[in-house]
Amino acid sequence: MNSKTPTLGIVCSEGTISLSLEEGFEFVGVPLSGEGLKLRVEALAPSERLQEFLDDEVAYHPEENVHKVVGLSSAWLELDSEDTLIADRSEEVLLKEASYASYCGLSSIILNGPTSPMNVMRYARAVSSALNSTMNLKFLVQLAIESGHEDYFETWKMWDTIRSACGYHPRLKVALELPPACSPPIELVNRWYAEPIEMITMSCMAFVPNPNGYPVLGRKLRAIYALYLRLNPRILLWDNDAPEKIGDSPDYSIYMKHLFDSQPPAPLVEDLADSYKDYLQVPLQPLSYNLENITYEIFERDPVKYAQYEQAIFSALMDRDESSVTRIAVVGAGRGPLVDCALRAAISSSRTVDMIALEKNPNAFSMLLMRNRQDWAGKVTLVFGDMRTWNPDYKIDILVSELLGSMGDNELSPECLDGVQHVLDEETGICIPSSYISYVTPIMSPKLWSEARNMNDPNAFERQYVVLMNSFDFLAADDEFRFQSLWSFHHPNKDSEVYTKNLHNKRFASVRFQASSPGILHGFAGYFEATLYKDISLSIMPATMEAKSPDMFSWFPIYMPIKKPMYVPENSQLEFHMWRLTDGMRVWFEWCANAYLVLRNGSQIKLSSTEVHNISGKAFSCNMY
Amino acid sequence: MNSKTPTLGIVCSEGTISLSLEEGFEFVGVPLSGEGLKLRVEALAPSERLQEFLDDEVAYHPEENVHKVVGLSSAWLELDSEDTLIADRSEEVLLKEASYASYCGLSSIILNGPTSPMNVMRYARAVSSALNSTMNLKFLVQLAIESGHEDYFETWKMWDTIRSACGYHPRLKVALELPPACSPPIELVNRWYAEPIEMITMSCMAFVPNPNGYPVLGRKLRAIYALYLRLNPRILLWDNDAPEKIGDSPDYSIYMKHLFDSQPPAPLVEDLADSYKDYLQVPLQPLSYNLENITYEIFERDPVKYAQYEQAIFSALMDRDESSVTRIAVVGAGRGPLVDCALRAAISSSRTVDMIALEKNPNAFSMLLMRNRQDWAGKVTLVFGDMRTWNPDYKIDILVSELLGSMGDNELSPECLDGVQHVLDEETGICIPSSYISYVTPIMSPKLWSEARNMNDPNAFERQYVVLMNSFDFLAADDEFRFQSLWSFHHPNKDSEVYTKNLHNKRFASVRFQASSPGILHGFAGYFEATLYKDISLSIMPATMEAKSPDMFSWFPIYMPIKKPMYVPENSQLEFHMWRLTDGMRVWFEWCANAYLVLRNGSQIKLSSTEVHNISGKAFSCNMY
Repeated sequence: MNSKTPTLGIVCSEGTISLSLEEGFEFVGVPLSGEGLKLRVEALAPSERLQEFLDDEVAYHPEENVHKVVGLSSAWLELDSEDTLIADRSEEVLLKEASYASYCGLSSIILNGPTSPMNVMRYARAVSSALNSTMNLKFLVQLAIESGHEDYFETWKMWDTIRSACGYHPRLKVALELPPACSPPIELVNRWYAEPIEMITMSCMAFVPNPNGYPVLGRKLRAIYALYLRLNPRILLWDNDAPEKIGDSPDYSIYMKHLFDSQPPAPLVEDLADSYKDYLQVPLQPLSYNLENITYEIFERDPVKYAQYEQAIFSALMDRDESSVTRIAVVGAGRGPLVDCALRAAISSSRTVDMIALEKNPNAFSMLLMRNRQDWAGKVTLVFGDMRTWNPDYKIDILVSELLGSMGDNELSPECLDGVQHVLDEETGICIPSSYISYVTPIMSPKLWSEARNMNDPNAFERQYVVLMNSFDFLAADDEFRFQSLWSFHHPNKDSEVYTKNLHNKRFASVRFQASSPGILHGFAGYFEATLYKDISLSIMPATMEAKSPDMFSWFPIYMPIKKPMYVPENSQLEFHMWRLTDGMRVWFEWCANAYLVLRNGSQIKLSSTEVHNISGKAFSCNMY
Repeated sequence: MNSKTPTLGIVCSEGTISLSLEEGFEFVGVPLSGEGLKLRVEALAPSERLQEFLDDEVAYHPEENVHKVVGLSSAWLELDSEDTLIADRSEEVLLKEASYASYCGLSSIILNGPTSPMNVMRYARAVSSALNSTMNLKFLVQLAIESGHEDYFETWKMWDTIRSACGYHPRLKVALELPPACSPPIELVNRWYAEPIEMITMSCMAFVPNPNGYPVLGRKLRAIYALYLRLNPRILLWDNDAPEKIGDSPDYSIYMKHLFDSQPPAPLVEDLADSYKDYLQVPLQPLSYNLENITYEIFERDPVKYAQYEQAIFSALMDRDESSVTRIAVVGAGRGPLVDCALRAAISSSRTVDMIALEKNPNAFSMLLMRNRQDWAGKVTLVFGDMRTWNPDYKIDILVSELLGSMGDNELSPECLDGVQHVLDEETGICIPSSYISYVTPIMSPKLWSEARNMNDPNAFERQYVVLMNSFDFLAADDEFRFQSLWSFHHPNKDSEVYTKNLHNKRFASVRFQASSPGILHGFAGYFEATLYKDISLSIMPATMEAKSPDMFSWFPIYMPIKKPMYVPENSQLEFHMWRLTDGMRVWFEWCANAYLVLRNGSQIKLSSTEVHNISGKAFSCNMY
C-alpha cells in the first residue's frame, strides 16, 4: 500500500461547497469570479482600469471551509493572446484574482495553461509577474498531459518554458489534466512524473459505466493515475461538461479510493523511508566520524544484505578444505551483524573458524564486548583500532567488510581495504566483497535540483547527495546503455602496486548516453554493484537490483547535481566525465557534462557544457584519516 | 591613433633576458623548467612523486627583471593525454610550475592548449585545478586562431569548453597564436576578438623580408594584428623555429610599432572615452535626479548631436510662414545648448522666434538665468518647473527636447513628452524629435557578462547597462536582419488616446535572429534611431549611425545581460522577447530569450530558454516622478 490516501476534490460553486464536502469530497475547486466580471471587462474602454471587483463579479467569499477551497481563475483569460489589449487585460484580471485569493486565505489558485506554443513567453511573463505579486499563493498551471498534436511533448515543452522563464519558482506547480481519450507514450508519462504535480484534474467524462452502472476509469487512465498516486497529488474532478452524469458524486469518490487501495504494494524501502523521499543527505564520513547507535540499528535491519553476506561467507567456507581452520576477520565490525553472519555460515558449512572482529569506534566496541560475552560465548577475538594499522602475528583467510557507499567506493572502501590487506594470507586469502563497480545515469529532477538550490549555499551544487529518489525521470533511453559503469575496484588489490599518496586509487571515466525524448538534465544518479564472493552480489543499480538483491534498502542512490539545468532536445547525447581524485589525505569526486545533438547524417553539434563541479574537492571531500 | 602602444616581447632563456630587453623588447617569455625535468619525469616509476625541482631542472630564477617576465610552462606537457599516467604527471608538473611561478613573483604563465577536442574536458579540469591551486597567477592558454582542420572553429570551441569548465575564471586568459599561413574567416576573427585575449603570439617565421630585407607581416596577418591591437594585448614573438633569421630583434620591434603607428585613427568616441570601454554604467534617472554640471558639460561637447538639432530646427522654421512669429520651447533645457541651436537656426532661417526654455533642475536653472543675462540679451522666457505640470496661457509651435536614452524611450522621453504635449498648438505644432525606434541585437561578450557577475549582486544580470562596448561580437549574421527594431514612439502622440496610468506607453516585441557561426549568447545590445525632423536624424544603431550621425558620442549602447550564458550552435536562431511595462508610477523593461536549431528540412528544435529578467522591475525601474 502507498503511504497516503489520495485527497479527492470536485469543482463546484460557492453555493454547493458544503454539499460537495458532505458527499465525501475532501476539497473543492471554486471559481473566484463570475460572468459579471467578464461582461464588464469586455465593455471596458482600453483607457479604463478594472479597479475593484463589483459585488456581482465575486463568485467566492471567505467562509468556514476556506482551507478546503482551491481557487479557479477565470477560464476566459487569454494571457497569451496575440491581441495586446486582451493579453494585458487578462494579466490584470489574473493579478486581481490572485490578490483576492490571497486575501481570502486560499493556498492555491488554478489557471489554464497557454493555448499554443506561439506566445508561451507572454504567458510565462504574466505568470511570473503574478508569482512576484503574491507572497504565499501557489499557482497551479493546468496542462493536458499530451498535446493532441503531432508533437506529443508540446504541452510538456510549454510547461518547461514557463518554469524556466519563472526561474523554477517554488510556488509554481502543475495541475495535470488527464483528458478522457488521452494515450500518452510512456516516455511522456514519465517526464511529467518528474514535475511538481500538485494536482491531477479529470473530467467526469473520463469515467465509463461498469456493468453495474458505476463510474470507472478505462485501463489507460487507470494506469497513469496509479503511477502518479506515488506523488501524492490531489485529485480534482469536474462534471459540468459531462453529457449525462453516470454516477453520483459519492460513486466517484468511493471508486477513486478503491483504485488507490487496490494498488500493488510499494517497494518495502518506500514504506520504511517515506519521509526520506527526495530528501538530500550528505554522505557519511565513516573514516573520520564515529557512527551513532541508531545508524547501526537502521542498517542492521536490512534483511537482504546480511543474507547475501552470510551466503557469500558460506560459499567461501565451502570452498575451503574441510579439515582446516579458517580465520575470518570482520573489519569494521560495528555492533557485530557480520560476525553473526560468519558464525551462522560456519555452522551451516560445518567448518571450523577462528573469528576475529575489529572495530575503531570505541562506542560500538563496547557493544561488541557485551555481545561476545552474551551471544558468542567469548569465542570471538576482539581487536580495537583502525584496520589500516592492525598488525596481527597471524594471517587472515577471509576478510569481511561492509564499507561500501552508494557508488561503491565513495565512502573509501578502497583505501580501507588497501590498508588492511597486508593481514591477508598472500596465497589463498580472499576479501568479501571482492569487487565493486560504480554506475551512473543522467536524470531529470526539478525537485532534487530545487532542493539543492534551496540550500542557499554556493557549494550545494558541487556535492554528492544520498537520496531516495522519487520525483525524477531517467533521461537516457530505456535500453542496456541507460546505466553505464565508471570504474571498479578489486580486493585484494594485486593488479597494481599500492602507491604512496593513494595514487593507484585515482580514477577517470567518460561515458555517453542517448536521450531520445526531450528533457532537462538536472544531474546524475550514481549506484553500485558489488560482488561479495563468486556469483553472490549486492546491487542498487536499477537494471540488476531485482535480480541480485531485491528489496535491499541499506543504500539510496547518489545524486550529483549540475549548477545550471541543461535543456536536452530530442535525439541528443549526454557525455559525462567523472574523476575520483586524491592527494593522499582526502578523496573527492569531480564531474562535468556536455550535450551534443546527433543529426541523421551522423554529424554532431555541440549544445552546451557545464563547468567542472567540486574542483579540487572544494565543496566536498572524504577525509582518509 | 589607438590609445596605447603595444607591448612587445620575445621568447628567450634566462641567460638572454637582459640582452632581449636591451634590444627593445619590453618583456620576455622564459621557460620555467629545462630538459632535466623532462628526463627525470620520464624516468620516474608510477609510484614515485616528483617532489621538489632539482637544480638542473629550474630554468628561471627570480631576478631584477622579474616584472617583465612571463613564465612558459613545459612544452612537453600533455594534460589531455589518453594515457592516464602521462596526463596525471603533466598535471603534477603544471601545478609545480604554477606554484614556482607564483613564488618567483611572475604574474602570468603560458601553457599550450589541448592537442585535440577528444579529451578537452581532461585538459580543462587540470587547468581548473591549477587555477584553484594559485591565488594571483594568470593562466594564458595558447591556442591557434584556427584549427587547420575542416572545422575552422575547432580551437575556439575547445577554448569555450575550457572556459565554461573553469566557470569563467577571471584569471583564465587566451594567448592567441597567429600561425604564419593562417587565413581564418572573418567570423572566427571576430569571435576571438570578444575573448579575453591577453596576448598575441607569433613565430618570427610569420614575417617575410620586404624589398629592403627587413621583416614584415603579410597582408592577412597585418589585418588581424591591426584589429586585435584595439584590445591592447601584449605581443610575444619567438624565433627558435625560424629556418633563417631574416632580421635582428630590433627590426621586429621597430616594425611592429611602426604597424601600430600606421593604423587609421580610432573612432573619436574611443579616443575620448577609453576608460569607459566595457565599463558597465547604470542608466541615468533624469526624472527623479538632478544631473550634475559635469554631466551636462560632457554631453554638450558632442559636435554632431547639436548640429543635427540646429539643422532640424532650421528646417522646421523654413517650413513656417516667413511673416509669422514662431514660438519655440526647449523643455528640459539644462544649461541651454538647444536654446543656442534654436537661436542660431532662427538667424540662419531669418525667422522671428519667441524663445522659451523650461528646466526643472534648480541648479541648471540658475545657469540659464546667467546665460539669458550674458548671452541671450534677456530675450529668452525662462520657466522653472516640471514640463508635465507646465500650463502656459499660450500654445507652442515647436517643442524641442533632448530626453532620449540609449534605446530611445528608456529614460522616459515618451512619458515626459506626453505630459507636455498639451502646450503644443493642436493643428500645426511639431515635436523635435518627432519619433524614435529601439533596436536590439544578440551579442557574445564574456567580458561584459563577467563584469556583471563580478558585481556579486543577484540583481546584476537583471539591469540594463550603458556601456561603450569593445570586447564583444555580434552573434546574428551580418545582413540586414542583424539589428531588429522593437518598437517606436511618435510625438505629438495623436495615434492613440493618452491613458491614465501610462498604459498606452506599454510595449511588447518579439524578434528573431539567425546565428550562422557557433558562439555564446551573453545578452543583447540595444540602440536607437531618432527622427528629429523630416529626414534629419540621430542614430547610434551601427547599421545607420555612419549615414545619419557619424562621430556622435553622446550615447553608448545598452547591454542587457542574461543570467546564464547560452551556447549557440551553428545555424541556430535566437528569439528575443522584450517588454516595456509601467504601473503608472514606474517604467521598467523585462526580457528573455530562446534558442532554436533549424535543421535543413526546416524543422526546428528548441535548445534552451532563459528566465524572464527583471520581472516586475524588481532589479531596475525608472521612476516617473
